[in-house]
Amino acid sequence: MRLLEAVPNVSEGRNIARVHEIAASLERSPDVRLLDVSSDPDHHRTVLTAVGEPPALVGALVDLCRAAIERIDLTGHSGVHPRLGVVDVVPLVPLGACSMAEAVDCAERLGSRLGEELGVPVFLYGEAARDTHRRVPASLRRGGLGALASAIAAGTLRPDFGPRRVDPRVGVTLVGAREPMVAFNVELATTDAAIAREVAKAVRERDGGLEGVQALGFYLETRRRAQVSVNLLRVSATSLATVVERIAAEARRRGVEIGPSELVGLVPEEAVLRAAADALRLPRLASEQILESRLAGR
Amino acid sequence: MRLLEAVPNVSEGRNIARVHEIAASLERSPDVRLLDVSSDPDHHRTVLTAVGEPPALVGALVDLCRAAIERIDLTGHSGVHPRLGVVDVVPLVPLGACSMAEAVDCAERLGSRLGEELGVPVFLYGEAARDTHRRVPASLRRGGLGALASAIAAGTLRPDFGPRRVDPRVGVTLVGAREPMVAFNVELATTDAAIAREVAKAVRERDGGLEGVQALGFYLETRRRAQVSVNLLRVSATSLATVVERIAAEARRRGVEIGPSELVGLVPEEAVLRAAADALRLPRLASEQILESRLAGR
Repeated sequence: MRLLEAVPNVSEGRNIARVHEIAASLERSPDVRLLDVSSDPDHHRTVLTAVGEPPALVGALVDLCRAAIERIDLTGHSGVHPRLGVVDVVPLVPLGACSMAEAVDCAERLGSRLGEELGVPVFLYGEAARDTHRRVPASLRRGGLGALASAIAAGTLRPDFGPRRVDPRVGVTLVGAREPMVAFNVELATTDAAIAREVAKAVRERDGGLEGVQALGFYLETRRRAQVSVNLLRVSATSLATVVERIAAEARRRGVEIGPSELVGLVPEEAVLRAAADALRLPRLASEQILESRLAGR
Repeated sequence: MRLLEAVPNVSEGRNIARVHEIAASLERSPDVRLLDVSSDPDHHRTVLTAVGEPPALVGALVDLCRAAIERIDLTGHSGVHPRLGVVDVVPLVPLGACSMAEAVDCAERLGSRLGEELGVPVFLYGEAARDTHRRVPASLRRGGLGALASAIAAGTLRPDFGPRRVDPRVGVTLVGAREPMVAFNVELATTDAAIAREVAKAVRERDGGLEGVQALGFYLETRRRAQVSVNLLRVSATSLATVVERIAAEARRRGVEIGPSELVGLVPEEAVLRAAADALRLPRLASEQILESRLAGR
C-alpha cells in the first residue's frame, strides 16, 4: 500500500484536553491512523504521528491545522522549543511503496490548501523546498517569528503559499517532505542550560559535529534539568548510539553526567537495530534475525 | 495461534550439503516453517530454528532426528562445542497462546518417539525435567558422552526414554522446554583459548557472574581466534548489552580487546529492545514505539 506518514508539530504541550481535541481531527477519516501523540510541557509542543493514504492524509492535516488555529494563540506562547507557528512544522514521510516525489506533491497540495483555506503563510522545506536555502528549516527559524514576519512584510521573503502578511496569533507553517528521522532528548544532570547548549553545539553537524545531527540545548522548568534535544535526520549516516555516546562524552568533559533520554514520537526500526548492533558489537543486525519479526512475516 | 518453536542443535557444521538435507526434513510439513539455519565449522554444529503447530512440529522433529542419525557418525566428531548426540539438544519454546505445559507435553511426546522409534536414549531437561538435577543440561554434559554412556551402562543413570545403552555413533539427545533465550558469541582478539575460558567463567552465573548467563571459552581454528560463547537463558534477567560490556571489561583486564560478535539463530525482540534502550539511556523501549511495528499492527 502507498502510505504517507505525517509528523505535525503543534505549539501546545500543556493543555492536554486541547491537545486531544486537536488530535481527534486527524482521526475523523477512516483512511488515516493516529499512531502517537507526544506532548511536552516545557517545549510547550506536541508531536503527532499519523499515517494514511496520501489524499486522505492531506485532508486530515488541513482539518488538524484548522482545529489547532481555532484553539491556540501564539502571542502568549512561551515554550523553550523554537516555533514559528501554531502548527509549526508538518513533515511528510513516504513509507513503503510511496515515493518521495509523491510526498513532495502532497506537501505542495497541503501547503496550497493551508494558504488558501486557512490563510496561513506556508514555506516548503526539505525535499519539497523550491529554494535550496530552505531545505533546512533552521534557515527560516533564525531570528524567530518576529524577524520572519518583518521580512515577509518588507517583501524580502515570500512564502510559497498563502498571504504575504503574518497573523501573530497563528504564525507561519513549514511544510516539507523528508526521510524518516529520530527525535530524541537527553537530560543532563545539571540545571545549567549553557552546558546543554555547548554540548548541543559540539555534537551537531552544522558546527562540525556528527553527520545528520541537529541539536539544541534547553532548560526544562518542570524537571529542573538541562536537556539536549536532538534530531537525527539521516538514520543511515550516524548511529543513535554514537550520538548518545558523544553527548555523554561532551557532558562529562564539562563535569556533568547524562540522565535518562526519551524518544519523541516513533522511531524507525533501522535506528533501533543499529543502536542494538553497536551495543552488542554485531557487524549488523537485521529485522530478519528477530524472532517476532519472522513470525509476523516481515 | 498456538505456535511452538523448536531449536534443534545438530552435530554437523561443516558439510553444508548434509546440513541442507537434514534441514529439509523439517520443511516437509506445511504446518512447520523453518526460520533459520546457523552452521559453525569450528563448533561443528548447526542450530536450526523452526516454528509450527505443536503436533506437526513434533512429527517434523522426529523426521529431522532420523535424517541426522542416518547421515552423522559421532565417533569421528571433533567440534569445540561439547555435544552428547548427533542431535544434541532439542529445546521447545512456547510462543503466543501456547503454554509452557503444552511445550512440556510435546517434549515428552518427542522424547518418547525418539526413544521408541529411533532407539535414542533421551533425557528431559529444562521445564520438562522430571528430576530437578536435570533442569540444567550442563549437569548431564559433565564428563562428556563417555562418562554418560558408562553411567547408563552401569545403571546409575537412567534415560527418561529409549534404550539403556548408548550407540557411540548416535549418542543421546536432550529434549526440553524453556523460555526464549539468546545464543551469542563474542570473538576475542587473541588466539589464547585460556583467556576465553577465564572470561567465560567470570561472566557466567554458575561461577558468580551474571544472572541467566551460561558461557564457555573456545579456540576457533578456522578464524584463528578465541571466542566466548554465551547463552542468555533469561532475557528479562540480564541485558545482553550488559553481557557484552562485562565480557569486554574482563577481556580488557587481561589485555585483550573484543572483536565482532554474532547471534546464533534468532533473537527475541525483547533482548534487542533492551540492548538498544541501554545503549540509548532510555528507561524503556517498547515495540509500540517503533514505526514499522505500529504499521504492522503489532
